[in-house]
Amino acid sequence: MSEDKISLWRECLEKRLVSLMSRIKEPKELAPAVSYYVLQKGKRIRPLFLIATTEVLGGDLEDSITVGCVVEMIHNYSLIHDDLPAMDNDDYRRGLPSCHKKFGEAIAILAGDALLTYAFEIMSDISLYKSLKAEDLLKISKVLALKSGAEGIVGGQALDICGSGDLERVNLKKTASLFEACFMCAGIISRREDILSDLESVGRLVGLLFQITDDILDRNGYWSVLGTEKALEKAQALYRELLHKLKNTFENTESLVYLTNLVYRRIKEDT
Amino acid sequence: MSEDKISLWRECLEKRLVSLMSRIKEPKELAPAVSYYVLQKGKRIRPLFLIATTEVLGGDLEDSITVGCVVEMIHNYSLIHDDLPAMDNDDYRRGLPSCHKKFGEAIAILAGDALLTYAFEIMSDISLYKSLKAEDLLKISKVLALKSGAEGIVGGQALDICGSGDLERVNLKKTASLFEACFMCAGIISRREDILSDLESVGRLVGLLFQITDDILDRNGYWSVLGTEKALEKAQALYRELLHKLKNTFENTESLVYLTNLVYRRIKEDT
Repeated sequence: MSEDKISLWRECLEKRLVSLMSRIKEPKELAPAVSYYVLQKGKRIRPLFLIATTEVLGGDLEDSITVGCVVEMIHNYSLIHDDLPAMDNDDYRRGLPSCHKKFGEAIAILAGDALLTYAFEIMSDISLYKSLKAEDLLKISKVLALKSGAEGIVGGQALDICGSGDLERVNLKKTASLFEACFMCAGIISRREDILSDLESVGRLVGLLFQITDDILDRNGYWSVLGTEKALEKAQALYRELLHKLKNTFENTESLVYLTNLVYRRIKEDT
Repeated sequence: MSEDKISLWRECLEKRLVSLMSRIKEPKELAPAVSYYVLQKGKRIRPLFLIATTEVLGGDLEDSITVGCVVEMIHNYSLIHDDLPAMDNDDYRRGLPSCHKKFGEAIAILAGDALLTYAFEIMSDISLYKSLKAEDLLKISKVLALKSGAEGIVGGQALDICGSGDLERVNLKKTASLFEACFMCAGIISRREDILSDLESVGRLVGLLFQITDDILDRNGYWSVLGTEKALEKAQALYRELLHKLKNTFENTESLVYLTNLVYRRIKEDT
């Protein structure tokens, strides 16, 4: 039941993303690089959490899909820049050449810039939304900007690059902040700002669980610091805390638990 | 008279910029790089045109100063990224080491990202504005995103880097688009959307005049293509066209002509 629903959401999200990205046609030297990562089939785990939360809270699903596309744009711009030679220097992403390998470094920098800018263009175009008002769009924009800027993703990447800050602080900013934004945006879409700080906490737990399971699969980060056994214990503790928090925050947790299991079970299959 | 007024606006703008940038405190590895360019005393010519236009059209000056700060943030983020080794590879800017020379390439990329994100954060924080409503902020955000993204600044830089597109097309996107945005934003602030396309045209002329005078002073761009005499002729023709357009668009053109002369007279003093 949850599985079918989530497949459907994923399909709608992909369609909406293709449609939004297809509006970037010019210049032809840049446009393909802007869409390159974001149109690769990623897990879409962030927007799926956003959509599932919006459904549980009774908000408009179509609008949550559009905001979910914006989240994917922000996530993928950050990947383009993270992969650059001056940053993590990754030649591959999802089994394909990284953006700068395919299009060159200058175009990759600009593609990231254009994608980030486009994310905020979509957030400021009220004609793209059905039920959201100007005030709602501003609130969502502000949350997304806060969680992806110096206090969020970009700040976390800076700490990571500089090797300063403990792993938890890096991950809270670099990874968890965008998950926090997803749950908070669902709250704004659903006009449930009364529980915004609970939603933020849920997002933080999901983000940390996502990061530690990723680290266990990739054998780095938490895994390197804690070792396999402690890392698995930490993942399990986070998983339990998250299930508990979901139950205390939402009336119906079926889809959210399903998505949480998608994240958590990866390590069960692997280890 | 215009001179005193413009000095005062410049002072208010500097104060507001310092105050807005001082809110970025963390992480300490990133924050100084984010403010580095934007707090150097630049010409501030873009926000000054925005403020002057808002005054002539009867809009709220304080709000136009805040939007002017956002324009400076966008302008300076684009300079940080333009200066990078993979792009124009400039070691100096305004007589000081460029951002990546001072802070390293990774931090410079992230500083640009954070500054761009912060620009949209300021545009989405309604508590920072006196007279503007949520709808107005969205419209301004959309104009700024359109004029600075793939169709604007970023697209122009991509064409420039790839050596494709004629000089006029590059300059229209890379330089003129943010000037267009300034005049259009002044129109939105002043609730004069009835003349938005005239304001855009004025901005385009100011941007092109700015670019050609810059090229003549720096001995590149238009100057390299046209030679001194033809470049000066083109500058003069643009100047005259602009003065004519200002007269046809605004009831009082005193400050705008003063600012236009600041741009144009630079070559008179130099050549």
